[in-house]
Amino acid sequence: MEKRVKHIELKPEMRVDELVEEMGKSGVFSAGRVAKAVEIYHEMLKAGSTIFMGVGGAMVPGGLRRVLTQAINEELVNVIVTTGANVTHDLIEAFGGYHARGEALVDDAGLRERGISRIFDVYVPQQIFELFEDHIQPMFAEVTKNGARISSAELLRRIGSHLKDENSFVKAAATKNVPVFCPAIADSILGLQAWLYSQEHELNIDCLRDVQEMVELASNAKEPGAVLLGGGVPKNFIFQSMLLTPKSFKYAIQVTMDRPEPGGLSGATLEEAKSWGKVTPDAKLVTVIGDVTVIFPIIVAAVLKK
Amino acid sequence: MEKRVKHIELKPEMRVDELVEEMGKSGVFSAGRVAKAVEIYHEMLKAGSTIFMGVGGAMVPGGLRRVLTQAINEELVNVIVTTGANVTHDLIEAFGGYHARGEALVDDAGLRERGISRIFDVYVPQQIFELFEDHIQPMFAEVTKNGARISSAELLRRIGSHLKDENSFVKAAATKNVPVFCPAIADSILGLQAWLYSQEHELNIDCLRDVQEMVELASNAKEPGAVLLGGGVPKNFIFQSMLLTPKSFKYAIQVTMDRPEPGGLSGATLEEAKSWGKVTPDAKLVTVIGDVTVIFPIIVAAVLKK
Amino acid sequence: MEKRVKHIELKPEMRVDELVEEMGKSGVFSAGRVAKAVEIYHEMLKAGSTIFMGVGGAMVPGGLRRVLTQAINEELVNVIVTTGANVTHDLIEAFGGYHARGEALVDDAGLRERGISRIFDVYVPQQIFELFEDHIQPMFAEVTKNGARISSAELLRRIGSHLKDENSFVKAAATKNVPVFCPAIADSILGLQAWLYSQEHELNIDCLRDVQEMVELASNAKEPGAVLLGGGVPKNFIFQSMLLTPKSFKYAIQVTMDRPEPGGLSGATLEEAKSWGKVTPDAKLVTVIGDVTVIFPIIVAAVLKK
Amino acid sequence: MEKRVKHIELKPEMRVDELVEEMGKSGVFSAGRVAKAVEIYHEMLKAGSTIFMGVGGAMVPGGLRRVLTQAINEELVNVIVTTGANVTHDLIEAFGGYHARGEALVDDAGLRERGISRIFDVYVPQQIFELFEDHIQPMFAEVTKNGARISSAELLRRIGSHLKDENSFVKAAATKNVPVFCPAIADSILGLQAWLYSQEHELNIDCLRDVQEMVELASNAKEPGAVLLGGGVPKNFIFQSMLLTPKSFKYAIQVTMDRPEPGGLSGATLEEAKSWGKVTPDAKLVTVIGDVTVIFPIIVAAVLKK
Repeated sequence: MEKRVKHIELKPEMRVDELVEEMGKSGVFSAGRVAKAVEIYHEMLKAGSTIFMGVGGAMVPGGLRRVLTQAINEELVNVIVTTGANVTHDLIEAFGGYHARGEALVDDAGLRERGISRIFDVYVPQQIFELFEDHIQPMFAEVTKNGARISSAELLRRIGSHLKDENSFVKAAATKNVPVFCPAIADSILGLQAWLYSQEHELNIDCLRDVQEMVELASNAKEPGAVLLGGGVPKNFIFQSMLLTPKSFKYAIQVTMDRPEPGGLSGATLEEAKSWGKVTPDAKLVTVIGDVTVIFPIIVAAVLKK
Repeated sequence: MEKRVKHIELKPEMRVDELVEEMGKSGVFSAGRVAKAVEIYHEMLKAGSTIFMGVGGAMVPGGLRRVLTQAINEELVNVIVTTGANVTHDLIEAFGGYHARGEALVDDAGLRERGISRIFDVYVPQQIFELFEDHIQPMFAEVTKNGARISSAELLRRIGSHLKDENSFVKAAATKNVPVFCPAIADSILGLQAWLYSQEHELNIDCLRDVQEMVELASNAKEPGAVLLGGGVPKNFIFQSMLLTPKSFKYAIQVTMDRPEPGGLSGATLEEAKSWGKVTPDAKLVTVIGDVTVIFPIIVAAVLKK
Repeated sequence: MEKRVKHIELKPEMRVDELVEEMGKSGVFSAGRVAKAVEIYHEMLKAGSTIFMGVGGAMVPGGLRRVLTQAINEELVNVIVTTGANVTHDLIEAFGGYHARGEALVDDAGLRERGISRIFDVYVPQQIFELFEDHIQPMFAEVTKNGARISSAELLRRIGSHLKDENSFVKAAATKNVPVFCPAIADSILGLQAWLYSQEHELNIDCLRDVQEMVELASNAKEPGAVLLGGGVPKNFIFQSMLLTPKSFKYAIQVTMDRPEPGGLSGATLEEAKSWGKVTPDAKLVTVIGDVTVIFPIIVAAVLKK
Repeated sequence: MEKRVKHIELKPEMRVDELVEEMGKSGVFSAGRVAKAVEIYHEMLKAGSTIFMGVGGAMVPGGLRRVLTQAINEELVNVIVTTGANVTHDLIEAFGGYHARGEALVDDAGLRERGISRIFDVYVPQQIFELFEDHIQPMFAEVTKNGARISSAELLRRIGSHLKDENSFVKAAATKNVPVFCPAIADSILGLQAWLYSQEHELNIDCLRDVQEMVELASNAKEPGAVLLGGGVPKNFIFQSMLLTPKSFKYAIQVTMDRPEPGGLSGATLEEAKSWGKVTPDAKLVTVIGDVTVIFPIIVAAVLKK
């Protein structure tokens, strides 16, 4: 009962890290958890942790593309596991496409007639996907020259190294030697394009090779830490990687809107991961129930500061 | 389809308002909504809006006491409607009590034995409530001298004017002439104390007088705006105030974790309020699905800037 | 580790109680909790519990009016605490009004022009509220003949005893001597009508009298049990009633979509209530995260069976 | 405004389909949506729809194993897309293992010491996973005799045809010729076991072959319908299958706790799918916000009736 709740105090011209510091003085409710996430991130960086970052959902159309790129360039992450959606939409912009601001409450049949596909309040014109096809098909030919049976991580490494767009997180990852895993790559537009390519060419994305590469990374990880943005395959693939090693995550930060009660791994508590040995019994853990597009930029801005 | 999603860019030493500006350039997902909330807040202030703020839940134990006080002192709000919990815990600190940082996952029967009451991850020692009783009972005697049949707003105005603690939002509101309504005052520790007092003294908290005072404020409101932090009685009491006037809210900002599907007013969309005439057909509206302890400080810090 | 998960087995022509029994054999996830809620309800009935039921939100427009009435008539509840919305909409139908089926995704400004107020996907034509006014104003005159300073429970008892509609839960409650508390009555259309009435007549709804009546009920409760449908004032008012007695709830069932993290009482765990002494350390507790309009009818149908 | 809300009426010995019928007479809030889901399911069956079912999360440990098996045997589904977790835990029971009832609020480090892995409130003893390994490794050898480069669907078809347990949904699917896709198979214990096997044997799970098989099924689907239980890869993989065909889903039922605001596909509205052409502009759609372990058995029990 020693530590008192100190109330958050604001000031004009306040920096993000100062706001987070105030949240940390409060130390309670969700604001306290945001501050704790920043604190754990700092500890991971100080400890030289190998940081595995899971990026679920569709964060790239949602405006977080450059934040991911910055996190890679500033060496805040060592391994990325993400969805096909995030990779597809990163490549779309790398190929000269774009995402447009739209409305979430809209006549979707009308959008269909106008050739617009919607992702919450983001609009993607149909021709952008045609542009994507025009660029990704020759790219597949290029990157499979040295072997057509590859992991998703190897595929994205090769693709990333051919990109010119400095804002692409796939390119930044390739440059910085950060593997980008996409274990459910078939479940995306990128996967559909890969299938199209495979109709007339040899292409074999072998997901067991992803497991191989991931298990090696987990085995060699130093003071392993996990930063889980959303749930889905990225979260589970990161956590399960420890099941085949004697190691466990020593740090884990989770930002999500998912909850435990439906029983899926997406919303599972980080404590549950202790029972599996995915995290250590005394791991430093924090879950922030909140939107990734708001919380993750705050965390990164505050971490960048120090 | 003109406006493109510009990705959020972070920088070290970034100010909160700069982060919000980046979120505004993105303009989508929840980050875009935070930026829109700040934009609407600025518009309200520029238009000289009468701003009605609803504060649900238990934001004071959650670390937002001074943010509320700052919002009052900086004239970001003209009328407050809140829960008995927020008033009770503000007074607790004004009377010399405190809130302690605890754990959300804990043995609650054990806490009970230690005399600690829990509010999520905030601990309140039982003796704090005794301290509260010691101070509030003579206060009731003091403030009912000039009439014992009063609205909750009048009661809190009188209490506020007797407080010494500059950090108290109830005091700040009394000083700044901001009414604080507590339409469900009986539903709180403060209400239980009022009932105790009424056992031997005359005290009559007449909720219809709150309606009277609120309808007058609504009728006289200039370019009315609503800032709704959480749901519950505060949100509805603010919105229904317009039903008895020819006016409607021209602006509304809602920050909540509640959703429409359960059908209660707490999670109702702001669009629904159009059908009732609570907001104008062309009102500027934004709902941020997020935690008030995180989102509201960001909004206020960004609004303070300009 | 003894008890195994037995998988739910369905059959044609299955009764609700049989389905719940299967859910109980499974015993896990939310289905297991629904079964546990039924089990606890049966225990309460067997123990002769005084059952306090909180009914938040707008369950009456949402189709649960007769389920509430049935629960009263079948003696599944002894005390009700609810919102002004539930009472208002019960009375609307008792006075000959109705609720219509609408759409949740709709042009609300257009509804406004058509004179329709929306509650999620329920439509209420404006004239229904005029009908409500026509009936409630003379009712106020009638029921305040024997004293104009009353609790909400006394007001609703008197109103209920004047109603003719057997489907009204307010009437059923009056008939069955089940008090109906509405501690935030001012926060509703009913409250606005009461205020209108009070403009020219004496009417004083004294919320401290509600506390008085509630504390007496809590003090005299036998093996007290709580059934909490949604959060808000009803949940808290029921729980706080025990703070002024040496008793605590021995049973509690909570059905809600609210979660603990925002920190308000609506989403607080039932375990938290142990720390306050609102429930006993060994109380039988269950929280079902789910929609009241689906879960409560299942529970009542299964309880009616035995 | 014609259709009035008829309030749900319960009766003792009520059948599930009768309860759903009452919910349908109400027609509003979540209860109304459950009834609409049943109505759409009946329409699909009547139209002879090819029904694609997505099963996210961990429904098998959660008690729904036999419900899935029944749905297959009763021909309520033609194609399944699911997670590795659901397949792993189905096979665990088929191999003689079991799941135990536990607690969600528990000391997870203590569970670890006791060798128990937790899935919400389900416990899995570590030796069960050893049993799983003992059975799945020889199974891999058996089923890859006729080719080691296979789709997940082909792998599960072959595994299913070797199982003896009539309660296994993987076996039932193989028997009934219902393909079971697991596009993120690497992201599961089953996937880890496949990787282990591949260390010394040839095994190549080619996800593009899953796309191939799925596109063929989508192309040949008759009056296509989707039943989406939870989100994740299963939902998206089903929806994206239509992007490479001229067809679209004419019916879709979604049961989930996920919401649109985080922007991921899991919580996306079914309306959004219209903009992509995944569903037809006039598709019959319903989303039930609720727990799959409660809602799906209700739907199936009601559908079995007629």
